[in-house]
Amino acid sequence: MLFGKVVGTVVASQKDPKLEGLKLQLVAGVDSRGKAGQNYVVAADSVGAGQGEIVLYATGSSARQTDITNNKPVDAVIMAIVDQWDIDDKLVFKK
Amino acid sequence: MLFGKVVGTVVASQKDPKLEGLKLQLVAGVDSRGKAGQNYVVAADSVGAGQGEIVLYATGSSARQTDITNNKPVDAVIMAIVDQWDIDDKLVFKK
Amino acid sequence: MLFGKVVGTVVASQKDPKLEGLKLQLVAGVDSRGKAGQNYVVAADSVGAGQGEIVLYATGSSARQTDITNNKPVDAVIMAIVDQWDIDDKLVFKK
Amino acid sequence: MLFGKVVGTVVASQKDPKLEGLKLQLVAGVDSRGKAGQNYVVAADSVGAGQGEIVLYATGSSARQTDITNNKPVDAVIMAIVDQWDIDDKLVFKK
Amino acid sequence: MLFGKVVGTVVASQKDPKLEGLKLQLVAGVDSRGKAGQNYVVAADSVGAGQGEIVLYATGSSARQTDITNNKPVDAVIMAIVDQWDIDDKLVFKK
Repeated sequence: MLFGKVVGTVVASQKDPKLEGLKLQLVAGVDSRGKAGQNYVVAADSVGAGQGEIVLYATGSSARQTDITNNKPVDAVIMAIVDQWDIDDKLVFKK
Repeated sequence: MLFGKVVGTVVASQKDPKLEGLKLQLVAGVDSRGKAGQNYVVAADSVGAGQGEIVLYATGSSARQTDITNNKPVDAVIMAIVDQWDIDDKLVFKK
Repeated sequence: MLFGKVVGTVVASQKDPKLEGLKLQLVAGVDSRGKAGQNYVVAADSVGAGQGEIVLYATGSSARQTDITNNKPVDAVIMAIVDQWDIDDKLVFKK
Repeated sequence: MLFGKVVGTVVASQKDPKLEGLKLQLVAGVDSRGKAGQNYVVAADSVGAGQGEIVLYATGSSARQTDITNNKPVDAVIMAIVDQWDIDDKLVFKK
Repeated sequence: MLFGKVVGTVVASQKDPKLEGLKLQLVAGVDSRGKAGQNYVVAADSVGAGQGEIVLYATGSSARQTDITNNKPVDAVIMAIVDQWDIDDKLVFKK
């Protein structure tokens, strides 16, 4: 999993029927120091993350292991909202 | 998923039998600001995207989770046509 | 899928038994303008591609969705020989 | 698999129910000479690795092949603590 | 699949039980001209490759399609020892 920051929402009305009802979030990649970068991913949201929140997302087939993404053509899912992390026992990020 | 722009069509008459009838689109990668880059992917099209349209595509095993790609040797699929997205509540792209 | 150019053949006599009989091609990556680069992949060949031909290859679990690669430790397969493609309605490659 | 160094722990209280009870470690990538880099991954821990330990982690669907990650939306798992490795018969790392 | 050179062995006594008995090799990436680089992967060995040998390895779920890696948390496997390959009909590598 990688850290990401929810920066926006993607709207797509014409889509594969299996995607109906899925919220698609635009997620900027976040490095281990908590800094958002230029890379991004569009991910289904299984946890109701809000704009600006730091999340964890999983990619590939693992992204289909939630109730809302099961058997769907989705290759990235937000599966957690991050409370905090530390590096070398120093707090790096706290919600 | 990532944003892409449909820039062309790929014709291949000699192919694995499972690919018969699939439309293969040439998709240029698009960054989170809506700018198309040099990277590309050839993707099966499950939504009837037209030339120049901005789409979402999924890769890996997730690309086989649509009716048209199921059990086929296809590792990328267009699964949505994008209407719009925003970053930090500002509209970045609108169809 | 990505474009590739078949540039050679790989011979390996000592291998996993499941690979017996598979032709392994050395494929140079080809960009969307048709130019071969330094990157490469070794792919099983499901379509009988010849030296110098421009092909499409799929990677990951999708590479195991052909009759010849099913359940085998193969992560790349040539699944089509490309006839032509265009970008912005201009022909880029024609066989 | 790749080498990594456990540098911290990630706390996430709001998450997909399948993640309950999983310890999520922040793992810095380590090169073949044993040097930690800027890249990272957040991985589930199947072996009880401690802060600072050099580990092996697997990604993708393979990350779900442990008892604790089976069928969960997890795309990286620590599956071994490294004792030592050598390159060209010279010891590079020893725990 | 990609070319690699077996450069060392990885020892890990504390590991997921499914890894018991698997030999883990340190494999340096090798480009299409036969030159080893700085990138590496740790791979299970299904063919008994020796130190210094040039091999083919597969990654992802395909790495679990050998008898020794089936259902195990392993994302890379050596599945062939390379005898030779050519580029544009010129021999590049011969064992």
